Amino acid sequence: MIIVMKPNAKQESIFRIKSTIEANGLDAHISAGKEVTIIGVVGDKSKLLAQNLEIFEDVDKIVPVTESYKLANKKFHPEPTTVKVRDVVIGGNNFVIFSGPCAVESKEQLLATAQEIKKAGAHILRGGAFKPRTSPYSFQGLEDEGLTFMKEARDETGLPVICEITSLHAIESAVKYVDMLQIGARNMQNFYLLKEAGKSGLPVLLKRGLSATIEEWLNAAEYILAEGNPNVVLCERGIRTFETATRNTLDISAVPVIKRKSHLPIIVDPSHATGVRAYVKPLAMSAVAAGADGLMIETHPNPSTALSDGPQSLTFEEFDQLTEELKPLVKLMEKNI
Amino acid sequence: MIIVMKPNAKQESIFRIKSTIEANGLDAHISAGKEVTIIGVVGDKSKLLAQNLEIFEDVDKIVPVTESYKLANKKFHPEPTTVKVRDVVIGGNNFVIFSGPCAVESKEQLLATAQEIKKAGAHILRGGAFKPRTSPYSFQGLEDEGLTFMKEARDETGLPVICEITSLHAIESAVKYVDMLQIGARNMQNFYLLKEAGKSGLPVLLKRGLSATIEEWLNAAEYILAEGNPNVVLCERGIRTFETATRNTLDISAVPVIKRKSHLPIIVDPSHATGVRAYVKPLAMSAVAAGADGLMIETHPNPSTALSDGPQSLTFEEFDQLTEELKPLVKLMEKNI
Amino acid sequence: MIIVMKPNAKQESIFRIKSTIEANGLDAHISAGKEVTIIGVVGDKSKLLAQNLEIFEDVDKIVPVTESYKLANKKFHPEPTTVKVRDVVIGGNNFVIFSGPCAVESKEQLLATAQEIKKAGAHILRGGAFKPRTSPYSFQGLEDEGLTFMKEARDETGLPVICEITSLHAIESAVKYVDMLQIGARNMQNFYLLKEAGKSGLPVLLKRGLSATIEEWLNAAEYILAEGNPNVVLCERGIRTFETATRNTLDISAVPVIKRKSHLPIIVDPSHATGVRAYVKPLAMSAVAAGADGLMIETHPNPSTALSDGPQSLTFEEFDQLTEELKPLVKLMEKNI
Amino acid sequence: MIIVMKPNAKQESIFRIKSTIEANGLDAHISAGKEVTIIGVVGDKSKLLAQNLEIFEDVDKIVPVTESYKLANKKFHPEPTTVKVRDVVIGGNNFVIFSGPCAVESKEQLLATAQEIKKAGAHILRGGAFKPRTSPYSFQGLEDEGLTFMKEARDETGLPVICEITSLHAIESAVKYVDMLQIGARNMQNFYLLKEAGKSGLPVLLKRGLSATIEEWLNAAEYILAEGNPNVVLCERGIRTFETATRNTLDISAVPVIKRKSHLPIIVDPSHATGVRAYVKPLAMSAVAAGADGLMIETHPNPSTALSDGPQSLTFEEFDQLTEELKPLVKLMEKNI
Repeated sequence: MIIVMKPNAKQESIFRIKSTIEANGLDAHISAGKEVTIIGVVGDKSKLLAQNLEIFEDVDKIVPVTESYKLANKKFHPEPTTVKVRDVVIGGNNFVIFSGPCAVESKEQLLATAQEIKKAGAHILRGGAFKPRTSPYSFQGLEDEGLTFMKEARDETGLPVICEITSLHAIESAVKYVDMLQIGARNMQNFYLLKEAGKSGLPVLLKRGLSATIEEWLNAAEYILAEGNPNVVLCERGIRTFETATRNTLDISAVPVIKRKSHLPIIVDPSHATGVRAYVKPLAMSAVAAGADGLMIETHPNPSTALSDGPQSLTFEEFDQLTEELKPLVKLMEKNI
Repeated sequence: MIIVMKPNAKQESIFRIKSTIEANGLDAHISAGKEVTIIGVVGDKSKLLAQNLEIFEDVDKIVPVTESYKLANKKFHPEPTTVKVRDVVIGGNNFVIFSGPCAVESKEQLLATAQEIKKAGAHILRGGAFKPRTSPYSFQGLEDEGLTFMKEARDETGLPVICEITSLHAIESAVKYVDMLQIGARNMQNFYLLKEAGKSGLPVLLKRGLSATIEEWLNAAEYILAEGNPNVVLCERGIRTFETATRNTLDISAVPVIKRKSHLPIIVDPSHATGVRAYVKPLAMSAVAAGADGLMIETHPNPSTALSDGPQSLTFEEFDQLTEELKPLVKLMEKNI
Repeated sequence: MIIVMKPNAKQESIFRIKSTIEANGLDAHISAGKEVTIIGVVGDKSKLLAQNLEIFEDVDKIVPVTESYKLANKKFHPEPTTVKVRDVVIGGNNFVIFSGPCAVESKEQLLATAQEIKKAGAHILRGGAFKPRTSPYSFQGLEDEGLTFMKEARDETGLPVICEITSLHAIESAVKYVDMLQIGARNMQNFYLLKEAGKSGLPVLLKRGLSATIEEWLNAAEYILAEGNPNVVLCERGIRTFETATRNTLDISAVPVIKRKSHLPIIVDPSHATGVRAYVKPLAMSAVAAGADGLMIETHPNPSTALSDGPQSLTFEEFDQLTEELKPLVKLMEKNI
Repeated sequence: MIIVMKPNAKQESIFRIKSTIEANGLDAHISAGKEVTIIGVVGDKSKLLAQNLEIFEDVDKIVPVTESYKLANKKFHPEPTTVKVRDVVIGGNNFVIFSGPCAVESKEQLLATAQEIKKAGAHILRGGAFKPRTSPYSFQGLEDEGLTFMKEARDETGLPVICEITSLHAIESAVKYVDMLQIGARNMQNFYLLKEAGKSGLPVLLKRGLSATIEEWLNAAEYILAEGNPNVVLCERGIRTFETATRNTLDISAVPVIKRKSHLPIIVDPSHATGVRAYVKPLAMSAVAAGADGLMIETHPNPSTALSDGPQSLTFEEFDQLTEELKPLVKLMEKNI
């Protein structure tokens, strides 16, 4: 932590800060420049938590030097993490495809989807039973009944299943039926939910919030990890910007940034990022080439009657074609699919 | 709803959409232009929910014409709503000041604050017992114990009290001790929480999400209203932009926009919007002049040792001075303080 | 300038940076922490311009400590600047209203506007002769002919006149007819134009770019000041965000931030910030209360036939009413109008 | 164009709009819904330019149906455009790599770079002689002398050369020495410059503005095309968002969006998009996979002493390695490199 003093800060202001730092058991290194003085703080910063040095007299600003996340930080855990969902391994040299409908609508819809995506090469079946929708008048999901369809689809196809959870109640139901929990973009900073997901014992897919910085996202992962659950997979799904040609703006840079700052696997969801079916394939390709560990792609037997997010869902035929085109690219990136 | 067709859309594509609309009991008005054909849909759009017209062949885009929120919409409820929190009335010609610490830290801190802000003219005491913090290692709040201090502060000063809630558990505790619930920016689209707050019977202060459009914000309010709870107050607290001179960017336009689109009262929180104490007063003044129904201002007996958001908290002296300067401005705006 | 090293940076990397700093005639202060080492650079940073310390081995990041703008910086010029445009003084205790049409359309339109706004209390007449328009097929301005109308309007009413300039040619024409130059949002980082405006000898109104940080804005002002032209007035006119209810998002915080960081006067343009006539008055009021030194308000004899930005222009009657309501507020803020 | 009326709009308001539309020679199609009435305008909208229907009584909003750009629009020009820069062809099945230093610093630096990047497989040499810099105290470029070095580099290596131009003067100089003009992000809406570049006769590389929508970007291209210059290549280089881990946020979706809306070629500049050398390769790869027609990559003989943007420049060795890794990917995408 570095404290930058205002120009012409009084000596006594500098001295008061130095004393406060030392009284808390840390060291203060003073560099007096021509214009400004800076004070480097050396030691365990958490000891200073009860002090807002930022508002001491003559302080201009505080510059943090180290990240606030530790367990998610590559600096302290240089080896890439792999996460096992039943027998599917995410991370390392594996490339994993999640697919399925935005919302579970019926047993038939889900089973048909599970069988088709399995044939096309998907590894994990997704499906929403608890749907966070902007308007209270939109379809809100089949809830617990949807979960039983998920389990049935897994039993029939062998594909592990993942479902978004939006409350403690949803977690309590989901752990009985699914293999991995998803925390959606709108709940990325629902810290209560993060902690409960951390305690669930299941691996967690953590989507990035619409306006979350990568630093905040890794801190959200830290909430789960800090509960003793090391099985966290990140999912970039687009951020909110001024551009309206796509529903969100896929931040493709998040892939190499996460690879550099964290050891957690990262997948990309081009369906939610764009909201437009025609852009799913080029963005899926770009995610593979950027180094992503996997993809989440929405599919539906009949997108034009989907109860949620139909415009971005692929038909089975389109999905089949997509996975065919992805394979040589995944191999070129030296990953196994 | 208007459906814009692609240039040179086939007649059969247009016909198929017309048929689908009519088969759902609505009317389709076709305008065939030189370049494009548009189809106006007349009738109850909710009947089309199961159809994704957007992905029918030759459709270019769908343009919604009416807002998805109804109960929060001024069009259907032109009179301004007033919300009563014990004997404090928010909305109409009243100007209401919420104040208190970001986090409840101790009984002493809270009682001292309650007494001082009451003297200075505040109407409602705020205080956080459940703190949503970016890092799991930051102070997370006193939880239920904090709530008992809130109640004690109310009993001693007569000021109604408000506390942020972050889970169903927190709501269940809070209803026993406080007079109004707050839903924070990070939970604005935690739809589960919105519904539970709607059911609680208490008035709700709904803060705008960091990257929520005003339309999404009013839809979030709709979740609460749809549970039969009409007592919703909105709070603008800054949105996320590229600017870093302030923690967030106060969207002052939200005040007149909400006044035009909704009947719900709106207050402004300049403390969280800027994160900088020196900017609290000018932004509080600007909010009054823009037509806000109130303010939420953070205060602390000793900001330099506050466990949360100290840099933006006012001392009692500063708060006292602020309310003094606000009064003539509030009167100029023809509101009662 | 502070150099933050990576954890476990090699001693030789630290030594190499220290040597480079010292070889350039500056001092390096090393603070070796438990996790990371930081190096404070003391002395004239411009001597390091030819070195990209950021990419030296083991460097994590560089943290600038002082602002790059000097002439615009309040630290080195604590007294507020006043700018004289003929006999109108901007800054200090004065409150100045600029008004007029977005685009000059005819002599009649401009003269009528000049007379009416003068009666209502405006101080400076604005009018666009060179219009930067998103589409090449929109009205591009009357150019030099428009300038002659501006001069005529001034001669008739005595109001100083201001016109946006978009090229060196436009500057060369404008200096013959107008009293102040305006650099628009889209040209805020047209550094060539900034320099030429600096050399023109006329005072300059510098609008903030749509996505410019306040720091970049002050650096743009620095370009003008560095040409020996001290007469710069800043104008906040909304930034680009995700919100679509208003054309741009008025960053009202920019007013107190500029007041704290710079000595230059700042005015606010609520017309361009919102693009909606109904929001002009509340935002004008909020700007006064936030401490702005003036306003720029679009007016038009008949907004429904305006060739540019009609939807945000006030009629003369609306403008008259606005200035009436502004006056008591300006007085409350202890400014002269 | 569709006009959406307010709920309960008066019949006479609807009639007045209908009359206005018809008086201008267009047709008005009225759809009267239960809640709102909409009016479809059929015919040549440019005839309505002098009418601001948006502010007619009882109008809620205007929804444009067709894009304002025509020459850049794929709808009216479905075949992809190819742009020839001497004997290098951009667009179609060709993949073209632009490379070189951010700023031309000396003849030696430029010639060394030209030779090395040619060996590695680059097709066009870039180099900045007129540098738009945030601060007036940063290196501003060698200007005309830099242009002569560019020409010399071309003469020696045969690589066509491109240089950013920032004023009419710069264009007048550049046409004598270089083969393609670049308009940078900060000048994307410098409409005067766009027109002059259009008139220059040289092909133009048009970078996207930091906060420009794709629609605005295509309208900027329209300015050049409308001058009779069909040789425009677009370049995505990152947009401004709240994320700070990268300098800008590369909007990779822009590649498929442009491919769908326009016939112009599009390349990607990962160097400026991220500002971090380590992210250049993964983002270059992602751009190829998304379907880009080329890349612009900064290189420098010694990035640590570069006068501009050193931290993002690749060494020759890194560039050589990058092009080696790109080749199989470009082939997989069925493009020639």
